[in-house]
Amino acid sequence: MTAATLIIGDEILIGQVADINSAAISRCLNALGIQVVQMRAVGDHAPSISTALSELLPLVDIVIITGGLGPTKDDKTKTILAQYFGAKQMVIDPAALQNVQRIASQSGFEMNELNRQQALVPDVCTVLPNALGTAPGMWFERDGKVVIALPGVPFEMEHILHNEVAPRLQQQFATPHIAHSTVLIFGIAESMLAKQIEAWENALPAHLHLAYLPTALGIKLRLSTYNGSDHATSLHAIQQQFESLQTIIPSYFVGFGDHTLEHFVANILCQKKYTVATAESCTGGNIAALLTSVSGSSAYFKGGVVAYDNAVKERVLGVAAGDIEQFGAVSRQVVTQMAQGVQRLMGTDFAIAASGIAGPTGGTADKPVGTVWLAAAHPTGVETLLLQLGNAPRHRIVARASATALNLLRCVGTW
Amino acid sequence: MTAATLIIGDEILIGQVADINSAAISRCLNALGIQVVQMRAVGDHAPSISTALSELLPLVDIVIITGGLGPTKDDKTKTILAQYFGAKQMVIDPAALQNVQRIASQSGFEMNELNRQQALVPDVCTVLPNALGTAPGMWFERDGKVVIALPGVPFEMEHILHNEVAPRLQQQFATPHIAHSTVLIFGIAESMLAKQIEAWENALPAHLHLAYLPTALGIKLRLSTYNGSDHATSLHAIQQQFESLQTIIPSYFVGFGDHTLEHFVANILCQKKYTVATAESCTGGNIAALLTSVSGSSAYFKGGVVAYDNAVKERVLGVAAGDIEQFGAVSRQVVTQMAQGVQRLMGTDFAIAASGIAGPTGGTADKPVGTVWLAAAHPTGVETLLLQLGNAPRHRIVARASATALNLLRCVGTW
Repeated sequence: MTAATLIIGDEILIGQVADINSAAISRCLNALGIQVVQMRAVGDHAPSISTALSELLPLVDIVIITGGLGPTKDDKTKTILAQYFGAKQMVIDPAALQNVQRIASQSGFEMNELNRQQALVPDVCTVLPNALGTAPGMWFERDGKVVIALPGVPFEMEHILHNEVAPRLQQQFATPHIAHSTVLIFGIAESMLAKQIEAWENALPAHLHLAYLPTALGIKLRLSTYNGSDHATSLHAIQQQFESLQTIIPSYFVGFGDHTLEHFVANILCQKKYTVATAESCTGGNIAALLTSVSGSSAYFKGGVVAYDNAVKERVLGVAAGDIEQFGAVSRQVVTQMAQGVQRLMGTDFAIAASGIAGPTGGTADKPVGTVWLAAAHPTGVETLLLQLGNAPRHRIVARASATALNLLRCVGTW
Repeated sequence: MTAATLIIGDEILIGQVADINSAAISRCLNALGIQVVQMRAVGDHAPSISTALSELLPLVDIVIITGGLGPTKDDKTKTILAQYFGAKQMVIDPAALQNVQRIASQSGFEMNELNRQQALVPDVCTVLPNALGTAPGMWFERDGKVVIALPGVPFEMEHILHNEVAPRLQQQFATPHIAHSTVLIFGIAESMLAKQIEAWENALPAHLHLAYLPTALGIKLRLSTYNGSDHATSLHAIQQQFESLQTIIPSYFVGFGDHTLEHFVANILCQKKYTVATAESCTGGNIAALLTSVSGSSAYFKGGVVAYDNAVKERVLGVAAGDIEQFGAVSRQVVTQMAQGVQRLMGTDFAIAASGIAGPTGGTADKPVGTVWLAAAHPTGVETLLLQLGNAPRHRIVARASATALNLLRCVGTW
């Protein structure tokens, strides 16, 4: 069973926003055993949309369209789908209208004609309710193929996808032959990793496919099979391979599953009932934001200080002014005192601190852009780490430094 | 002049990562007057890649491919392109090899065969140097069409795109007929905005196309023209329309240009030489991270406190324990004291604070998930704002609350 995504919107085509809907759709379909074989984006332009549908439908069983259902004049999808599926007329769907009215009254805005039109659908579709927004989804069928149109706003799209689309697809199509699983590796370059695990990789059975996925938060390794006998058996075979991989690179192996580094760290802190605080300069609150992005983080995260200004480092965190003058704000001495200062201030078991030069300005010959000192204070001392992240873009230096700080906490926390 | 992007990678097709390269490529090409008419993603699967090339090349003048050039075994693009363009053999490119050696020695890893293979290219391409990574880009030509292959890692891709691809395309193809420009609107729902600016929209000249782009950080409105006589004249016409729009919705109109809210806020703070601090609970450091994502933010941002635990709100920010008990941590009283406390602690002109329930747990009947109190302390008082963001996903509540806090600071800061 195969599918394609078709993303509609000039804002995608001109690069104003990246398409994140295709990835969410693919994850959902994969879990049902449906393989996405193509993702395509075209503009708000009727012939391009019709052509894309005509090219994709012979290729796959299911096409999921997002975008173009909004209330404003640049949105064309609904009209095109009505024509494409031979609708006789557009009709007001009573439940969709009621939903628009509910949202209008909750949000305190007055219904206008544009809002009302959101409930207008072609008479040949099944309406998929959208509890989080005014544009409903639509389900069309022709010649055994399914075309589903969803709003482009990602959280509305995902809501309808999981609550309306997935159950219907499962009933109509689902086949459990796809399985894949992921592990997270941190602290080693892709080519070195490939060399270290070469023998393991070469010994993999032919039906298991390995993929490397480098991210700012580590390298994900994924094993997939597209023709396993059943889902549980395939997953078990993959799990066994990963367990053997873990024994080959134990120090870089963060954990099993498609989780992010912050989730692995959160799990350790929760299990051991440790508490943590953060003191950040160059990362500007990003480490705290990562730690608190996990639901339930109040169990382990007490708080943090973003000490951008040196006076804040001194006054709030108790860093010695003389050390800032002598060694600079980006130094082992200062980052150590930042970690210890916030550990004391917040009364936590652990604390992590970062001070560096995120660029593009502020670098010197001694301390070029990308120089970052990290410290992890634990109950009996402080570990420090110097990073040289090179002349990468500002957001990338912040992301790498934040991730490495979390990994340092993970290493210190698992002692 | 038209182009398409072709993104290669199983990790994209299974939804493990979203494609952000297409958007970056499109922005770059648009600036050269080249219109991207399709974006497509396919897996690491030779027939899919060849088919995509065969379908896209008749449609456009330029295809830019990303992905599949890495050192590991799942990467197939290079071999397929060699076949597709009739290469006689793969050859080591001396400059690319030297680059790999330089990166290996800088990063302290030992060259292995996989690294060496990065310098292997088809004998029919022009090599595009990659100073930030080991995989070079490649430029192929056939029948007046151009196919460019770039690595999939976004910051390496963008580096080659801007330094190697754009200058060559400009020389060979560029036509300056596309123009578009954007303004940022904040604090009004899309349908209400559409109603308020209906007369303005209807009066737009036919060659200007309006698009609405709702984001978590406001609604972007974009005016485009694809057949203007010259770039400067088109941009001037667009600018005049936006200036007239500004007089219609002055209070929602954040500013001109495709900037983010944090950049508009940064500009105001820099111009007026104001300083600011943050006190965050539910947003967990995100407001500070947004403020410091702008290069040069140390001019206005002194620091912040992430006060997740109530004890931290009391001890570090001086919030009255009795008020937390009486009104709750998510209250006008507490958020006001958080803002004033951090303003005092950091010695700044302004301070913003946020306290709310990001969910999915922690909501009550009185204060459901999505309830967020914001405060902006200024030199002569404090403004507060209550948000009800509904039962949206955690990251979305954090993003909306952070954006609204920045906008509150913008409004207070422009007084």
